[in-house]
Amino acid sequence: MNIIDGKETARKIKQEIAAEVKKMTDAGERPPHLSAILVGHDGGSESYMANKVKACAECGFNSDLIRFDEDITEEQLLKEIQKLNENPDVDGFIVQLPLPKHIDEQKITEAIDYRKDVDGFNPINVGRLSIGLPGFRSATPAGIIDLLDRYGIETKGKHAVVLGRSNIVGKPVAILLMQKAQPGDCTVTVCHSSTKNLKEICREADIIVAALGRPGFVTEDMVKPGAVIIDVGTTRVPDATRKSGFRLCGDVDFDNVAEKCSYITPVPGGVGPMTICSLMKNTLLARKGLFNK
Amino acid sequence: MNIIDGKETARKIKQEIAAEVKKMTDAGERPPHLSAILVGHDGGSESYMANKVKACAECGFNSDLIRFDEDITEEQLLKEIQKLNENPDVDGFIVQLPLPKHIDEQKITEAIDYRKDVDGFNPINVGRLSIGLPGFRSATPAGIIDLLDRYGIETKGKHAVVLGRSNIVGKPVAILLMQKAQPGDCTVTVCHSSTKNLKEICREADIIVAALGRPGFVTEDMVKPGAVIIDVGTTRVPDATRKSGFRLCGDVDFDNVAEKCSYITPVPGGVGPMTICSLMKNTLLARKGLFNK
Repeated sequence: MNIIDGKETARKIKQEIAAEVKKMTDAGERPPHLSAILVGHDGGSESYMANKVKACAECGFNSDLIRFDEDITEEQLLKEIQKLNENPDVDGFIVQLPLPKHIDEQKITEAIDYRKDVDGFNPINVGRLSIGLPGFRSATPAGIIDLLDRYGIETKGKHAVVLGRSNIVGKPVAILLMQKAQPGDCTVTVCHSSTKNLKEICREADIIVAALGRPGFVTEDMVKPGAVIIDVGTTRVPDATRKSGFRLCGDVDFDNVAEKCSYITPVPGGVGPMTICSLMKNTLLARKGLFNK
Repeated sequence: MNIIDGKETARKIKQEIAAEVKKMTDAGERPPHLSAILVGHDGGSESYMANKVKACAECGFNSDLIRFDEDITEEQLLKEIQKLNENPDVDGFIVQLPLPKHIDEQKITEAIDYRKDVDGFNPINVGRLSIGLPGFRSATPAGIIDLLDRYGIETKGKHAVVLGRSNIVGKPVAILLMQKAQPGDCTVTVCHSSTKNLKEICREADIIVAALGRPGFVTEDMVKPGAVIIDVGTTRVPDATRKSGFRLCGDVDFDNVAEKCSYITPVPGGVGPMTICSLMKNTLLARKGLFNK
C-alpha cells in the first residue's frame, strides 16, 4: 500500500509555481495577486484562509485578505466584488464560504467575473470544465486529478466510483474522470444518498473518490483489493485530547482500508493541501491571461 | 413492454405550448420568435431544420430561417450572430451544426448570447444545468427527462447507465439523472469507448440511455428484464427500399430488446421529436424572460 502524500506533492507544485513567478519578477513583471474576502469569524473559514494566505507567500504571490463583519449586507458585498472585478491589479479572488444566511451564496458566486473566478464556481467555468474547454477548474477536483497524475496512476478504462454529487466536488470530479484525457477516460459511477446497494458498487471500483462528509463511511468490506482510495472528507470531530478540541476526519476508515488498497490519501495531508494548490495554479493562470483579458 | 411514444408526447407538449402562446397573443402580446441559421445544404441539416420550422408553426411561434452559402467566413457568421443577439424581436436562435470546416463551431456556440441560447450549448447554460440552476437545458437530455416524467417512470434510486459521453447528450443527461429531482436521483454510470466489461455494466442497469451513434449496439443479452431503454441513436443507414435511400437506425437492436424491457423508445419517433419539443420549450422560456432581460 502506498500513501499518496498530498502535502509533499503540494509542496513540490508550489515550488514549481514559485520558480515561474521568480522568472516573471526577474523580468520586471508583476507577480500574481490573489485577493480573498472573509465575512465573519467562522473557525474553519479562518483556518482555511490562513492556509491560503500562507500558500500565496510560498508561491511568491501578492495577496490581501479583506475582512467584513457578519452584518455586511448582500448589496455592500456585491459592491466590494464589483471593485475587485474592476481592479486591474487583482488577477483572481475568492469569497470564503459559507456566508451568513442573509446573503445569497449563489448570487455572490455569480457576481465574480469568470475571468477572476479562481475557485471555479461561476457557471461559465463549471460549463467550460464540463465541455472540456480551458477555464478555472474547481479546486478540489483539479487537485485530485493532479494527485493521480503525479503518482502515475493508470486511469484509462478503470471503473471510478464517486461518492457524493455536490457541485464543488462530486459532479465536477466525475466529469473530469470520464473525459478522454490522462488522467481520465474512466468509466464513472456517481453514488449518493438515494443509491441502493452502494457497498456492492464500491466493491467493483478500481478507484473510489469519497466526498460525502460522513466520517469513516468507507469501510474495509467495501473495497476491492488493490483499489485506489481518494478521501475528500474533512469533517471536524470533537477530540478532547487535541489543543484545538477537534480532529479532521475523512470519509474513509483509514486504518483498515489502507491495508487492502494500492494507494490511499490520508486526512489530513491528502486532498486538502492539493485544493489550495489548485487555487494557486488558477491564480497563476489568471495572471498569465487565461481568458486574454 | 410499453413503447414510449415520443411523437405523441411531443404533439401533446406542443399543444400545451400553443395554448399558452394563444393566451399571450389574445392578451395583445407578441408570440415567441425563434430564428435559425443554416449554413450550406447538408441533407440531414435541411431535414432537421424543416422539422424545427414546422414545430414553430405548430406552437404558434414566429420563426425565420437565415441561410448562408458554405463559403461564408467565420467573421461574417459572427457578425450575423451579433445582429441576432441585439435584435429585441428575436427571443432565441440556433445555428445548425455541423458547420463547414473553416468555421470554429465552439467559437460560434460561445458567441451566441446565453440569454438567447435555446440549444443550451453555451458554457453558461451547460454550467447552470450542472449546478441545477434555471437555464436553457440542452434539448436532447431535457427531452429524455420529459419522457421519463410524462410516462411516470420511477427513477429515484434506480441505476441509470449512460452509453456515450458527448457534450450534447451523454454528459448532460448523466448530470440530470443524478440530480436530486424527479425524474432524477439515479445512481448513474457513464460508459464509453474505453469502458471494459460494458455488457456486464448494462446488465445491471434499470435504465439504459444509449447515445453512442452505433446502430444496433445494445443487444438483448445486455439488457436486464424489465429495464427502461432510451435510444438516442439516429444513424442514417443506406436502404435502397426507401425513397430517401436511407433509414434512421437507433443504437438499440429494437426487435429483440423490446421483448425483454418494460419501456423502450423507438427510432424514429422516440427521443427525436422530444428534442425539437425542448427547443420550443426553451424558446417559450426565453420569450417569458428566463434571464430577466
